[in-house]
Amino acid sequence: MSLSFLLDNPDMLVRWLDLFGIAVFAASGALTASRKQMDVVGFMLVAAVTGIGGGSVRDLLLGRSPVFWIHDPVYLILCFAIALLVFFAAPLLESRFRALLWADAVGLAAFSVIGTETALEMGVPGSVAILMGVITASFGGLIRDVLTAEVPLILRREIYASAAAAGAVVIVALQAADVSELVRGAVGFFLTFTIRALGLVFHLSLPSYRPRPGRDPDADKDGS
Amino acid sequence: MSLSFLLDNPDMLVRWLDLFGIAVFAASGALTASRKQMDVVGFMLVAAVTGIGGGSVRDLLLGRSPVFWIHDPVYLILCFAIALLVFFAAPLLESRFRALLWADAVGLAAFSVIGTETALEMGVPGSVAILMGVITASFGGLIRDVLTAEVPLILRREIYASAAAAGAVVIVALQAADVSELVRGAVGFFLTFTIRALGLVFHLSLPSYRPRPGRDPDADKDGS
Amino acid sequence: MSLSFLLDNPDMLVRWLDLFGIAVFAASGALTASRKQMDVVGFMLVAAVTGIGGGSVRDLLLGRSPVFWIHDPVYLILCFAIALLVFFAAPLLESRFRALLWADAVGLAAFSVIGTETALEMGVPGSVAILMGVITASFGGLIRDVLTAEVPLILRREIYASAAAAGAVVIVALQAADVSELVRGAVGFFLTFTIRALGLVFHLSLPSYRPRPGRDPDADKDGS
Repeated sequence: MSLSFLLDNPDMLVRWLDLFGIAVFAASGALTASRKQMDVVGFMLVAAVTGIGGGSVRDLLLGRSPVFWIHDPVYLILCFAIALLVFFAAPLLESRFRALLWADAVGLAAFSVIGTETALEMGVPGSVAILMGVITASFGGLIRDVLTAEVPLILRREIYASAAAAGAVVIVALQAADVSELVRGAVGFFLTFTIRALGLVFHLSLPSYRPRPGRDPDADKDGS
Repeated sequence: MSLSFLLDNPDMLVRWLDLFGIAVFAASGALTASRKQMDVVGFMLVAAVTGIGGGSVRDLLLGRSPVFWIHDPVYLILCFAIALLVFFAAPLLESRFRALLWADAVGLAAFSVIGTETALEMGVPGSVAILMGVITASFGGLIRDVLTAEVPLILRREIYASAAAAGAVVIVALQAADVSELVRGAVGFFLTFTIRALGLVFHLSLPSYRPRPGRDPDADKDGS
Repeated sequence: MSLSFLLDNPDMLVRWLDLFGIAVFAASGALTASRKQMDVVGFMLVAAVTGIGGGSVRDLLLGRSPVFWIHDPVYLILCFAIALLVFFAAPLLESRFRALLWADAVGLAAFSVIGTETALEMGVPGSVAILMGVITASFGGLIRDVLTAEVPLILRREIYASAAAAGAVVIVALQAADVSELVRGAVGFFLTFTIRALGLVFHLSLPSYRPRPGRDPDADKDGS
C-alpha cells in the first residue's frame, strides 16, 4: 500500500496506525516482562494488557460493549506474536531500545488521536474526549507498571501523558471549529509526536510542582 | 440556596453532596500529586481518577453504562479545576491539611450513601448494595494510591472503609424496614461521618487481626 | 448430592466448582489480609475482591452486564462468610496452609474452565477465549496483590497463570474439534490442575527469559 493510497483512505490509515500502536505497546510490555525474567505466558499476558489495556478502559467507560478486541482476533494475536518474538529475540530488540522509544512515540500519538476521536464520535463533552485520549494513550502502560511492580509511568519525569493531552486538546478545539476529522487528526498526531520527541531528545519535562523553599516536602507525608 | 430549601429538595441536596465529595476527593488526589512532584497534567489525571474513580467502578459493575460522568461535563471540569487550584496554591492547602481531612470525611459519608442508594434503586441484594457503598467511597482513593505508588488506603490503620461500611449496612437495614430514603440516607451519612470523625480525633482503629503470641507473623510470608 | 448425580448434571457440577473456586480465592484474600493485619472490614473487602475479581473483569470485557454476582447474593455472602471465618480462625487455617494451596489449585482449574467456556458461549475467537480463561483464573489474585501491596502473582516463579493458559488452550482446541463441553471441560480442568500440582510438588517453573551471559540485565532499567 502506498502512502498516497492511505491518505485517500483515512479509515485504513487509522486502522494501520491503531495496529502499529498496539504492536509497539505490546513490545514495551514484553520488554518489561523480559526485565522481570517472566516465563512465556507472562510475556503474553503483559504484552496483551499493555497493548489493549488503554483502549479497553476507554471502551468500558464510554459504554462501548464489549470492548474493541473481543470480536476481532487480530488485536490479541498481534500482541501474542509480539510477545513470542520478544521472548525469543529480546537481546536483538534491547540493542534497538532507542528505536523502540521512537516507535512508542508514534504509538502514543496514534492512540491519543484514536481515543479522542472515538469519544467525540459518541457526542461526549470536550473535557471527556480529552481524558479519553489520555486514557487510551497511557492506561495500557499504567496497568503494565502496576502488574509488574515498576515505577508507574505518571511518576516519571519525562513528558508522556502531557504529550497525549496536548494532542487531545487540539483535536477537541479543532472539532469545535469544524475542522475536518482528517486534518484535526493529523494536527493532533504530529503535535503529540513532536512534544514527545522533543522530550526524548532533550529530556524535557514540564515544570513540576515544587514545595516552597524552606518547607520540608515530607512533612505532611504521613498525614494522609 | 438555603439549607431548608435543600432539605425540601433531597435530590438537589444529594447532587450538591455528590459534587462536594468529588471536589474533596479530587483535592486529595491533587495533594498526592504535589507530594510526588508531578507536572500539571499529572495533577489533573490523578485528581480526576480519585474524584470519579469510585463511582466509575460502581457503575461498571452495576452495568450502568456509560458511567455517570460521560455525558455531564461538570464532574470532570470540577476535578480539573480543583487540580489547577491545588497546583498553583498547594502550600495554602497544605497548611489547611486538617480542614481537608474533615472535608474528606464529609465526602466519604456522602459517597457511601450515594453508592448504597444507587445500588438499592437497581433492586440488587443488600450485600451487593453494601459493597457498592464501600466501593464508591473507597475505590477512588485506592486507585489513586496504586497509580502513585503510595501505601494503599486499606493498609493504613485508621478507620476509613469501615466507616463507609457501617453507613451502608444501616441504610440497607433501614430500607428493609421501609424507612424513607431521606431518613435512612441522613442516618447513614451521619453514622459514617461520626465514625470517621471519631477515628480522626482519637486516632481510633478497629481491632485488627493479630497473630497469636509466640507465632512469627512473617513465617508464612513466602508461602503464597 | 452424590458424585454421579453431579456428573449427570454438569450445570450443577459447574455451579459447585464455581462456588468452590470463589470460596478458595476468598480465603486466599483473607489470609493476605491477616498477614497485613487488617481489620474485619479489610478482610471482607480483600476476600470479595479476590473471590469475584477475575470473573468481574471477564464479564466487563465481554460486555456481560451487570457482572455475574450483582443479582445473586450467594457469591458475596460466601466471600464475606469466608472472611469472617478466617478473621476469627486464621491460626487454624494457617496451620493448614498446604491444604489451602491444593484447594487453590482446584479453584484455578475451575476458573480457567469456566472463564474459557463463558467466552466460547458468546462466540468469541479462540485467542480471546484463552485470555478470558487466564483472566478469570488470575485477575482476582492480581487485584488482591495490587491492593495489598504484595509482590504481584505473575512476578512469582511458580507455574500459575501458565497452568490456566494450558487448560484454556486445550479447551479451545477441543471445541474446534467438536468435542462435547463436558469432556473438554474435564480435560481442561485436569490439565490445569495437574500442571499446577506438579508446580506445587516439585516447585517447577517454566523456563523464564534470561538475559544473554555477559549482559547486565539492569543496564536498560531506567531507559523506559
